Amino acid sequence: MRRFKLTIEYDGAPFVGWQRQENGLGVQQVLEEAVTEFCGETVLIEGAGRTDAGVHALAQVAHVDIEKETDANIVRDALNYYLRKVPVTILKSEEVSTEFHARFSATERAYLYRILDRRTPPSLNKGRVWWVPVALDAGAMNEAAQTLIGNHDFTTFRAVQCQADSPVKTLDVLTVERQGDEILIRARARSFLHRMVRNFAGTLKLVGEGKWTAGQVAEALAAADRTRGGPTAPPDGLYLTEVVY
Amino acid sequence: MRRFKLTIEYDGAPFVGWQRQENGLGVQQVLEEAVTEFCGETVLIEGAGRTDAGVHALAQVAHVDIEKETDANIVRDALNYYLRKVPVTILKSEEVSTEFHARFSATERAYLYRILDRRTPPSLNKGRVWWVPVALDAGAMNEAAQTLIGNHDFTTFRAVQCQADSPVKTLDVLTVERQGDEILIRARARSFLHRMVRNFAGTLKLVGEGKWTAGQVAEALAAADRTRGGPTAPPDGLYLTEVVY
Repeated sequence: MRRFKLTIEYDGAPFVGWQRQENGLGVQQVLEEAVTEFCGETVLIEGAGRTDAGVHALAQVAHVDIEKETDANIVRDALNYYLRKVPVTILKSEEVSTEFHARFSATERAYLYRILDRRTPPSLNKGRVWWVPVALDAGAMNEAAQTLIGNHDFTTFRAVQCQADSPVKTLDVLTVERQGDEILIRARARSFLHRMVRNFAGTLKLVGEGKWTAGQVAEALAAADRTRGGPTAPPDGLYLTEVVY
Repeated sequence: MRRFKLTIEYDGAPFVGWQRQENGLGVQQVLEEAVTEFCGETVLIEGAGRTDAGVHALAQVAHVDIEKETDANIVRDALNYYLRKVPVTILKSEEVSTEFHARFSATERAYLYRILDRRTPPSLNKGRVWWVPVALDAGAMNEAAQTLIGNHDFTTFRAVQCQADSPVKTLDVLTVERQGDEILIRARARSFLHRMVRNFAGTLKLVGEGKWTAGQVAEALAAADRTRGGPTAPPDGLYLTEVVY
């Protein structure tokens, strides 16, 4: 038996999310089916981050155990062949020790949230960005973001259905910068609560519009109450960009 | 009657091209229908460049004459409303003199051609790039591109069905650079022949693979014979990026 670490890019739009679910196609499911087509084995693929419906990945990481005699490059090319009809790509495949676990061995995850900040709606980037027609102040958003850095109870930014044991997380990086007509929000932490980055984005947008101050964001965080946070930003703009081990 | 200059972004994938055609939906047609929905008038919309099926635009320019009392911002927002189900966006609308003609007043057009140069296929950028799994030498491609600059008979890079009066054009800029795993080809000229940029891309790719030298590209140009040029690159990677007046 060999364990392979897979680095995966996908367009989240046609999927119900990373996880296999009853109500539609999960990325996990299409990957597991591709492995079965390749080697005839029924496998469980574990991912580093359970992205929601519509959320994209530039570099999700997962691992899979395969009995068949094969090597990492063959796994990559064969899976890409069986995935050719869905927007999922195996960027990299590496043989790893069976001690490696895509989810539990990860030491940091990084996300990017893209806001298209212009008067007119997206056409080429439809489904890839959150369209906000009001002009946002990226500087003010970045300043407010800094109040969230560090070890906190993040209940204010946690989805009610979140299954994590504790709402306490350490946020390492949260930056906001403008690049042309896009506002880019970047976040890094060992792990995130469910919808945490989308809840950050929805809250920081209120700051960008001038409706909230950085102080109000800090107060909302301190309240540890989801009803005190801003709305959840849509999944379209969110990308899992890196998993560090 | 007022004439409006429209700057338009679109995803070319679902269209048969810019021009209204019998065999499917053209971008021109969806724009003309949006104008009719807005003001009840039947109009002809003239574009600066007739992009082919699958070719995208970051800033196509067109003009339209409207009898109804209105202004440029209303035209922009109303057309975007009627275009909301198709990947076409009016980025800008400006009232111009009736001497302005989107096609004939243009003094320069700019195109970008994107090659995804990596072993594994695109998922997020499917339909937006030409996937070339072989590693390309962008420096060699750029050097070969310089042999095409200037005033030449470009028959070698002209589609056989091209309707231009003359194959002689002046190519102002043709550059090739690598940006991460993408190769970006940028071209500027007063006007281009049909499929000229895609024929440049298809030929320069042969140079990038080491199959052709810059000297062979110069010889192919001098031969003024389409059969001496490289293959036509797919439309997916091509973007009309700017029209100058």
